[in-house]
Amino acid sequence: MEIKRNIDHKNICKKLANKDLTSLSKAITLIESTNKNDRLLANKILSELENKNERNTIRIGITGVPGAGKSTFIEKFGLNLTEMGKKVAVLTIDPSSSISKGSILGDKTRMENLSQNKNVFIRPTPASNFQGGVGKNTRETIFLCESAGYDIIIVETVGVGQNEIGVSEMVDFFLLLKIAGSGDELQGIKRGIIEMSDLIAINKCDGENIQNSENSKNEFQLALKLFSKKNSEWIPKVLTCSSINGRGLEEIWKNIEDYAKLTKKNNYFFKNRISQNKFWLRQIINESIQKNFYENSMVKKEFQNQLKKIEKNETSVFEASQVILTSQ
Amino acid sequence: MEIKRNIDHKNICKKLANKDLTSLSKAITLIESTNKNDRLLANKILSELENKNERNTIRIGITGVPGAGKSTFIEKFGLNLTEMGKKVAVLTIDPSSSISKGSILGDKTRMENLSQNKNVFIRPTPASNFQGGVGKNTRETIFLCESAGYDIIIVETVGVGQNEIGVSEMVDFFLLLKIAGSGDELQGIKRGIIEMSDLIAINKCDGENIQNSENSKNEFQLALKLFSKKNSEWIPKVLTCSSINGRGLEEIWKNIEDYAKLTKKNNYFFKNRISQNKFWLRQIINESIQKNFYENSMVKKEFQNQLKKIEKNETSVFEASQVILTSQ
Repeated sequence: MEIKRNIDHKNICKKLANKDLTSLSKAITLIESTNKNDRLLANKILSELENKNERNTIRIGITGVPGAGKSTFIEKFGLNLTEMGKKVAVLTIDPSSSISKGSILGDKTRMENLSQNKNVFIRPTPASNFQGGVGKNTRETIFLCESAGYDIIIVETVGVGQNEIGVSEMVDFFLLLKIAGSGDELQGIKRGIIEMSDLIAINKCDGENIQNSENSKNEFQLALKLFSKKNSEWIPKVLTCSSINGRGLEEIWKNIEDYAKLTKKNNYFFKNRISQNKFWLRQIINESIQKNFYENSMVKKEFQNQLKKIEKNETSVFEASQVILTSQ
Repeated sequence: MEIKRNIDHKNICKKLANKDLTSLSKAITLIESTNKNDRLLANKILSELENKNERNTIRIGITGVPGAGKSTFIEKFGLNLTEMGKKVAVLTIDPSSSISKGSILGDKTRMENLSQNKNVFIRPTPASNFQGGVGKNTRETIFLCESAGYDIIIVETVGVGQNEIGVSEMVDFFLLLKIAGSGDELQGIKRGIIEMSDLIAINKCDGENIQNSENSKNEFQLALKLFSKKNSEWIPKVLTCSSINGRGLEEIWKNIEDYAKLTKKNNYFFKNRISQNKFWLRQIINESIQKNFYENSMVKKEFQNQLKKIEKNETSVFEASQVILTSQ
């Protein structure tokens, strides 16, 4: 689907830099489009934009299993941030939801108060098929939101594994949201996610759940000791919070600020962003050359041809790959 | 380093098909070489070879944490197989060991009796940097070993995570080797590895360890019930064994034969191989086009140039990627 509009990329860049919401939305739609001309335009916009705001932003990854209360947390947490004068962008990634109008509305309904705030931008971003998870689109959307003047970028994922690794390569701070459970608190969440977390927040610490949550906190604190020291020199904490009465949310924000302070002082913050940028440079290039290759009409034809041969055991993968590689 | 030899690829294919060991070793060395001419020759060999033996082979992935007794198990298990008239190839992958002559000798010393058997071929295969794990080289080596008449291909990895996913994409049967431990048997091994296992064998079930091993077996049997049914319709078992007195090894082989029987009957065995081949087709092509791109001298230069700019914050990843992509 091609987005039919006469768009001048210089104009969109200028408007976007002036915090024009319509231009931001348009630019993101171009990025997500599978149409070649849209992508060309998107690349032009991305190349021309100067992200002057970049050094002042903070990118926060938030994950948790379904039921951990992520939306309610982000709604309350985000509103707190806007009260401090921050502009907040929330990018939600749900690999199971299709990117339809319905899901966009879905997210906005999930965070109703937040979505009505003029300093908040909420957008679901598609988990592209790139390496089976979060990719280029989300990274590009962060860049656009920052260019449009958003200070705090929240990237929300469902903590089921795959996606979080990609997200950790594009955020500064990684927050794992948990709820007090029954028995083994570590179950259900992958070790790797705990390992990459900068903060674990035990959510829904209210009403009858307070004692449970405190127990859970202690358990996680013990578990965290098993992990080796982080390159950032940051020592991850476990905190409790309630998105209903707001308890603990301020402390969580303070914790994130402390992180930024420490890592800007020891220089990890920007060094990490540079190494993330190098990672993304390679990812963007790899995706682009693969796309170019597979979109070539001769390659397309030969690829289908060889797949059929593989299905019939008429060739080896090695022979097939050579035929495809030389079909261009 | 270029391997200086006058090699005619048709000749090497012919000799290899006639089970000539020297040609097999030479072909593997060509595959592992980083020299362009060597790779070209390797590709020619791979494209020309017909793996007539393929339908009769079985590829077994064996993993376990360090200390699980993998080498001793493979030695004893492999010798049993040769006594049944099988030809066995053992490919060992250790991401921590460098591929030097030392490590080759190391593997052969580890499995001394096995390595002296004329029906056994042992080779360490480098964990290529391709997607951070086991890759193309190992897949290609399996293909060469089968073409040279080996019936049973054992791919050994250290069960630390990453590599096993790659290995599971190239084997028919996945065996997890465990030892009875203290308390939580599930610790130290990733959930994902248990999930992909077709058989869990509790090794070192001998002497004073027998009761412990039986307890461990029961624990794992309970744990396995938590996982959903496999596409192969195979129900994974937990068995005990001893590589010292050989107890249980025969049962393990019988289990693998049962697996092959079931999955050949329900057609999963070859369907799975075809879908693995499709996976590898894409991997091989992607690796090849990336290599071609990054080896281009203009790209190389511009890539370094842009990396420096990224380090100095003089460009965005998006601008940099566009410059590099158009530098060819």
